[in-house]
Amino acid sequence: MEQNSRSPKQRQIVSTARALFWKFGIRRVSVEEICTEAGVSKMTFYKYFSNKNELVKFILEEITAESISKYRRIMNQKVPFPEKVKQSIQLKIEQTEALSQEFFEDIHKKAEPEIKEFFHQKIQESLRLILHDYTAAQKTGDIRSDIKPEFIVYFLNKMMEMVKDEELSRLYSSPQDMILELTRFFFYGILPRKDKKRTKHV
Amino acid sequence: MEQNSRSPKQRQIVSTARALFWKFGIRRVSVEEICTEAGVSKMTFYKYFSNKNELVKFILEEITAESISKYRRIMNQKVPFPEKVKQSIQLKIEQTEALSQEFFEDIHKKAEPEIKEFFHQKIQESLRLILHDYTAAQKTGDIRSDIKPEFIVYFLNKMMEMVKDEELSRLYSSPQDMILELTRFFFYGILPRKDKKRTKHV
Repeated sequence: MEQNSRSPKQRQIVSTARALFWKFGIRRVSVEEICTEAGVSKMTFYKYFSNKNELVKFILEEITAESISKYRRIMNQKVPFPEKVKQSIQLKIEQTEALSQEFFEDIHKKAEPEIKEFFHQKIQESLRLILHDYTAAQKTGDIRSDIKPEFIVYFLNKMMEMVKDEELSRLYSSPQDMILELTRFFFYGILPRKDKKRTKHV
Repeated sequence: MEQNSRSPKQRQIVSTARALFWKFGIRRVSVEEICTEAGVSKMTFYKYFSNKNELVKFILEEITAESISKYRRIMNQKVPFPEKVKQSIQLKIEQTEALSQEFFEDIHKKAEPEIKEFFHQKIQESLRLILHDYTAAQKTGDIRSDIKPEFIVYFLNKMMEMVKDEELSRLYSSPQDMILELTRFFFYGILPRKDKKRTKHV
């Protein structure tokens, strides 16, 4: 089922389901409801997806592919490495913000094992990709040689939690300010850039 | 009730209670039990503390004072600022590791409002102290001028969560390795120390 080879009806089912799942989570949305909203018969539905789980996996596949392709486009640019990372953090934050709590909760905690496992695999694929980029960046000297790329990936995920943390956002007048602070910290830590020099830099 | 002016009996009550609270939390330990274990009469107990809450507050006061005095000793050393921070992170980690889950849970979530409020005040006092040090360090150029000291304090707390996170500790062969990684990251971020230079440093 390739994105390009999709029929308008299948496209209609998928985009309707995506919107409904986004709003209500997965468990609360039935195949019937999707068909009614999409204006297709159940027969048409089952022509494309053997059950709701297959549709959910199709959508997860789609979301992952979209996000990986955006990430790849950022990393393939001919700009300095920190600029790429900055943009990729920005992308991840946007995606996290756009993520529906209902959808995420269902996928993450309450979904059937089949879905959970599929989602887990997709995440692992993305992480391997990112890990590969950071390992390469370490070889070219773009990041510290004495840091574990796995730690970087772990911390990027932590950052997404922090972005949603009220305790932190309270410190900033805008989300952008907070994101800038986090990104700068991610790059530079707390110490001044020039070693040991006691000069103030604005 | 100054530490120095305490009678051996009061000392006995406090250290017994501290051990019991540590092991079982606060709610599950009664004044009777403390008295029996400490080998003092209830009359003696009430000579020093009007009720269990007063004893709990006394102990919280004691714990905070000990930890602040250790922190102060570190910060007053005549060593470079990063060395002080390194030691203070080490101290905080040791204290977090030594902290009993039962005690912490009771204090943090299940304690009576009076205790919770008291604990909250104590934490705020410590945070103000640390914040003061980081604000001063910013003025002397020891940390980046474009970072919020409040962010640093926030991140230090996050680091304590990370230290206890299995997902992270799995990446390292020893807790020390993980702590070193976190500390280095806290100081330097992910970028190499020398700007833009593509030299590998081991």
